[in-house]
Amino acid sequence: MKVVSVGAGNLATCLMRAMKKAGMEVVQVYSRTVRNAQRLGEELDCGWTTCPEEVRTDAGLYVFSLKDKALPDVIARVRPNEGLWVHTAGSMPITVFEGYASRCGVMYPLQTFSKERQPDFNRIPFFLEAVSEKDAAVLATVARSLSGQVAFLPSEKRKCLHLAAVFACNFTNHMYVQAARLLEEAGISFEVLLPLIDETAAKVHEMAPAAAQTGPAVRYDEPVIAKHLELLADPDRKELYRLISRSIHKEAEK
Amino acid sequence: MKVVSVGAGNLATCLMRAMKKAGMEVVQVYSRTVRNAQRLGEELDCGWTTCPEEVRTDAGLYVFSLKDKALPDVIARVRPNEGLWVHTAGSMPITVFEGYASRCGVMYPLQTFSKERQPDFNRIPFFLEAVSEKDAAVLATVARSLSGQVAFLPSEKRKCLHLAAVFACNFTNHMYVQAARLLEEAGISFEVLLPLIDETAAKVHEMAPAAAQTGPAVRYDEPVIAKHLELLADPDRKELYRLISRSIHKEAEK
Repeated sequence: MKVVSVGAGNLATCLMRAMKKAGMEVVQVYSRTVRNAQRLGEELDCGWTTCPEEVRTDAGLYVFSLKDKALPDVIARVRPNEGLWVHTAGSMPITVFEGYASRCGVMYPLQTFSKERQPDFNRIPFFLEAVSEKDAAVLATVARSLSGQVAFLPSEKRKCLHLAAVFACNFTNHMYVQAARLLEEAGISFEVLLPLIDETAAKVHEMAPAAAQTGPAVRYDEPVIAKHLELLADPDRKELYRLISRSIHKEAEK
Repeated sequence: MKVVSVGAGNLATCLMRAMKKAGMEVVQVYSRTVRNAQRLGEELDCGWTTCPEEVRTDAGLYVFSLKDKALPDVIARVRPNEGLWVHTAGSMPITVFEGYASRCGVMYPLQTFSKERQPDFNRIPFFLEAVSEKDAAVLATVARSLSGQVAFLPSEKRKCLHLAAVFACNFTNHMYVQAARLLEEAGISFEVLLPLIDETAAKVHEMAPAAAQTGPAVRYDEPVIAKHLELLADPDRKELYRLISRSIHKEAEK
């Protein structure tokens, strides 16, 4: 199957590597910037372009992995063709393709992607959506060649899943960022936190997150909370601490 | 070495199990509540009491694992003796023992503990503090019999470490709680998030957390952020989303 990657960001890069490894033929990469288009084109050993109108029309699968705000415009500029057009966005409905693609779908991999690190695709849950049964079957075959966890999910539910993922991943990582800054200021290596970070993640494999909660906020240990607020010099960090602690305590009282 | 556990909460429970397994003799458990004192006493097959004045005076090591607000009062009520008194609290200075213990120290295990789950102690970093060199050596021997990662750290630095741990663990777990609630409302199983949670933790073994950040806030994808805020019915959750997204974006602009 010939594949075009419309996008060359973190997700596109990791997904195209996995598709190539699974035997698909990536024939072209589009990106708004020369730097990203060329970088990924060269890595995948295929053509690249920065112009949506120059996207080839002979591929079987077009994978749009772009910022949500760029997606509609680029879809409108790619020349109509007979390929299956899919996007990989959590919060975009399948209807974004209406009027532009003769065949369309969604292939949403629930994972955090950075170019510098290739995750194990076999463990990534893929959530699919398609209009026709035929395209659903095509998408399922593609996704199953990449991962052992493939399911169909409509746009409305995918939106909720994406929002939950923002909390579980992006916001979690921001808590790591805050911890790293605090340790940096104290001259302590971030590495000492890794066993704690790992155990925090491992616990919710066995227990519901609400049952796994520990720390001063859940046991409402006021002297600790007061000391921590005093220790936090940065006003934004202090506000984060206050709001999240209050939310933990509220949750515990339910 | 005879050990008394002054406390029977999550940390005390997991630590005493590990000490017993390492060959130490736990001789008594104190807790404010009969339920906890009896539960841990029976699990460890030793005596228990709910009265600080009844704590035995013949042990070699007294491990105080209590809420910060309870600690000074209980320390004042345990009868003076020749044992080494240590606490396990991140934010309490070693000076809390002044005037009560002839020998004192701190043994702070940097981990999240729930009674229902025994973590691998060998990977837990222990941060120690003592007044005399002799007691420092005793504490180091005890800690090294439990874990491969033992270091000394003064109270001032331990306070910062504890605060960083609150962000990396307690606040992170609260993000998991929020994600779980959102999925529950959408009728989706929390399990689908586990590979994402694991990868988010795994990434920061290889990359600095700031470099690992992904998602709508860091790329400032306004349409996604607006949709998410619209989707969040709960006002507290909406405020969390807004504040954390703003903080991520600020961090990215640095």
